[in-house]
Amino acid sequence: MSVDLGYDLEQLDERGRSLLFTEARTANSFADIPVSDDELQGIWDLARWSPSGANAQPLRALFIRTQDGRERLAPHMMETNGDKVLAAPALAILAYDGRFYEQFPTTFPDRAEMYFQHFSSMPEDVVKDMAEYNAALQSGVFLMAVRAQGLAAGPMGGFDRAGVDAEFFAGTTWKSHLVVTIGHPGDNPWFDRLPRVPAETALAWG
Amino acid sequence: MSVDLGYDLEQLDERGRSLLFTEARTANSFADIPVSDDELQGIWDLARWSPSGANAQPLRALFIRTQDGRERLAPHMMETNGDKVLAAPALAILAYDGRFYEQFPTTFPDRAEMYFQHFSSMPEDVVKDMAEYNAALQSGVFLMAVRAQGLAAGPMGGFDRAGVDAEFFAGTTWKSHLVVTIGHPGDNPWFDRLPRVPAETALAWG
Repeated sequence: MSVDLGYDLEQLDERGRSLLFTEARTANSFADIPVSDDELQGIWDLARWSPSGANAQPLRALFIRTQDGRERLAPHMMETNGDKVLAAPALAILAYDGRFYEQFPTTFPDRAEMYFQHFSSMPEDVVKDMAEYNAALQSGVFLMAVRAQGLAAGPMGGFDRAGVDAEFFAGTTWKSHLVVTIGHPGDNPWFDRLPRVPAETALAWG
Repeated sequence: MSVDLGYDLEQLDERGRSLLFTEARTANSFADIPVSDDELQGIWDLARWSPSGANAQPLRALFIRTQDGRERLAPHMMETNGDKVLAAPALAILAYDGRFYEQFPTTFPDRAEMYFQHFSSMPEDVVKDMAEYNAALQSGVFLMAVRAQGLAAGPMGGFDRAGVDAEFFAGTTWKSHLVVTIGHPGDNPWFDRLPRVPAETALAWG
């Protein structure tokens, strides 16, 4: 089911604001409740609507919910992140596809040829930067989608990207950039919230 | 008001899913309704809760709602994006602060000294990449926060970053990376939605 919003938009209600923004946080422990493939697919069914530059959608996700997958991933994590991987009911390894421009016949049919020429002839490091930037923006939306599914997300950037890519993405054009634990919160799951940069530092007005 | 979620999380309801994900899109036109400073501050009051690596929160925002601001920004936009800037009730120039590590006494008090040493001694390009990656992830959350405020967001990466930085951020450590139009949707505001990368291309399972 979807709701036609017409021209009028409304504000998200307080429960939604708490769930996604004001009370949301990384879970410190997960309940012993499996995360189903339907739940993981449901995260993607929301996250895939994220905007991205030229609608290029470079974000890719490998969902891991097997013990074998956890054990292959854990050694590439920094410090205590390996334990978090082993204890997570499910995980997503978020990647970007450096060949996102091959998807333009699907993602931007009217400009597919123009965009393919434009991006496929760019220097490789420029294409990589664009792919990673847009995948990071989509990853922010992905984390909100995990929360919208009623699940807790634990994003971790501290891992050996090259090691993960060799382990999981050899022979593909996917490059890892974020690992996310996913599950139902367990006992005493929440750390105190860390402070935010004050508005007078983070904002300017013009 | 905030709602204590306790240990139990619930799914976002259908109205919230439509507003933020499944029916949300970039507005093609804006109504002649001003966006108040309170509304813009309200966006930030949600967006600031985004997760970020080491809680570093490198995202910064310059909110523009004056004609002078629009006219200073428009010449730096590519192609038709300049017209979009001039027609927008309000805008945000999203930036990252390359000196985010100076905020650790606020953002991570228990590890402030360790993190400051760690990040301030990194090569400049590594620090820049980390700042831009995390600011991009926070920008995804920022766009969802615009929608949660009942406003439409139009993100644009097509502009001359160096020109914008010289115009607005000279003498600071802020670097622009995204321009976002913000307003109430106008007449006939929605383009047809562009297709998404199919799940069989975007997802893998392990």
